[in-house]
Amino acid sequence: MKIYVIGIGLIGGSLAKDFKKQLDNVTVFGVDLNEAHLNTALELGVVDQKATLKDVVHADCVIVSVPVDVSAVILEQVLDLVKGDTLVFDVGSTKYTICEKVKNHSNRRNFLAAHPIAGTEFSGPEAALEGLFDGKTNIICEVEKTAFKLQERALDMFNKIGMRIRYMDPVAHDKHIAYVSHLSHISSFMLGKTVIEKEQNERDIFDLAGSGFESTVRLAKSSPAMWTPIFKQNKQFVLESLKEYIDNLSNFKALLEDDSFEKVYDEMQNTNRIKEILNGISIKK
Amino acid sequence: MKIYVIGIGLIGGSLAKDFKKQLDNVTVFGVDLNEAHLNTALELGVVDQKATLKDVVHADCVIVSVPVDVSAVILEQVLDLVKGDTLVFDVGSTKYTICEKVKNHSNRRNFLAAHPIAGTEFSGPEAALEGLFDGKTNIICEVEKTAFKLQERALDMFNKIGMRIRYMDPVAHDKHIAYVSHLSHISSFMLGKTVIEKEQNERDIFDLAGSGFESTVRLAKSSPAMWTPIFKQNKQFVLESLKEYIDNLSNFKALLEDDSFEKVYDEMQNTNRIKEILNGISIKK
Repeated sequence: MKIYVIGIGLIGGSLAKDFKKQLDNVTVFGVDLNEAHLNTALELGVVDQKATLKDVVHADCVIVSVPVDVSAVILEQVLDLVKGDTLVFDVGSTKYTICEKVKNHSNRRNFLAAHPIAGTEFSGPEAALEGLFDGKTNIICEVEKTAFKLQERALDMFNKIGMRIRYMDPVAHDKHIAYVSHLSHISSFMLGKTVIEKEQNERDIFDLAGSGFESTVRLAKSSPAMWTPIFKQNKQFVLESLKEYIDNLSNFKALLEDDSFEKVYDEMQNTNRIKEILNGISIKK
Repeated sequence: MKIYVIGIGLIGGSLAKDFKKQLDNVTVFGVDLNEAHLNTALELGVVDQKATLKDVVHADCVIVSVPVDVSAVILEQVLDLVKGDTLVFDVGSTKYTICEKVKNHSNRRNFLAAHPIAGTEFSGPEAALEGLFDGKTNIICEVEKTAFKLQERALDMFNKIGMRIRYMDPVAHDKHIAYVSHLSHISSFMLGKTVIEKEQNERDIFDLAGSGFESTVRLAKSSPAMWTPIFKQNKQFVLESLKEYIDNLSNFKALLEDDSFEKVYDEMQNTNRIKEILNGISIKK
């Protein structure tokens, strides 16, 4: 199988590694505007050969794993080029815009809208990790719009790298993911900003920060080039979640100001049940 | 050496384990109002014997590791009882209140105000971890108010379990730690609250949450019984940090609303240097 990966970073590179390991007779072709990334991917063995966009005419499978503002554009070009039995899927963290963009494309049935819920805070081909998707969830949207044979091929591929499938409507996906993923990134970035602004002396952060700060601020290492277009495409739901988060913080602040410490205690105790929910996530891994 | 640990939870228990391992001839006596905790600690070998508060008269060292509202009260009782050469230290996440409370005590020189920057989101004697303090920072306040011989003994003990020492004024400690630790807990608790409120169906959180959400919300598992008194004692600095955090979030929200995505990008990029700061923390471990 000839797999073309467009955008050979953390997600595209990790998929390339896993498919090469878990499927038979796979050759991975890397396509990337960043020539340095492409060369690194080749040196690291993440891809077998370099290619260009127009080469996707030879593909059995095309993975579009570029920032979400670019992927809507690239996807149209890919669908213009591919053969009738080529599977094309994306991996973006927003699903409504891309589904809208290609809904009337004559090769819409070649496309599967996917969002593998996996990643790290790092980026680029060096960040590609074998086994990243094992036990994780892959959200698939508008599955009925993909040709049945290509659905089957995709499910087989995802299954072989250990992913569980969940089907969702693109709007529902974008709304839920705003809360469970996008908001976490904003909370982490702004926590990092608040601490950096205050602590002019980085030695103080270094000495005083424990594993708790490290954990909550980890996502503030994430790539702005990846996240800015996500926030742009999912603006309404991100704003909704951010407003509710700020309201909850402001309410907590008011409780502290009023010395309502019993209510402060209750707020925390009521949220403690996140333990059980997170245990579920850990088991999932 | 007879070490009495008052409050045999995560921190007291972990110190007990490490001191037993790293120092010669140590017997650890556990004191805890929670009889079940005390029995568990004994069964797990975290402590060697059970004891009561009045027994600290026999102690060479007393560790006060209870919630910060209780520790100021307990500490006075301990200082009333101990011998002239007994080292007493606390481990609380606030330092101004406890230093003020005992500043005129006739045995003030037996006391060392300490804050080992280490922990997990779990609590109770089962949470006690060997090696928890290795490579971590211990903040010591008002060291000049502790008898020199007892300073020496304390430093030797902390050194043997791998801790680095940093000296700070109690007010500076409380201010810095509000930003680098206390604020992280609030941001995490309120993130957990926002998501739980929205996602009535926990299955959705389970399926959609990745390691990013898990990391940012981890501290929302923490004990309300421990954290409520910390927020109460450090109210002014916690409020200050929380106000700045809310302001930063509100500013980010305004940038999104105005479609100022270049500035959104800049906000994230400027915060990315947390990477290097966190690398420092990781190296420290």
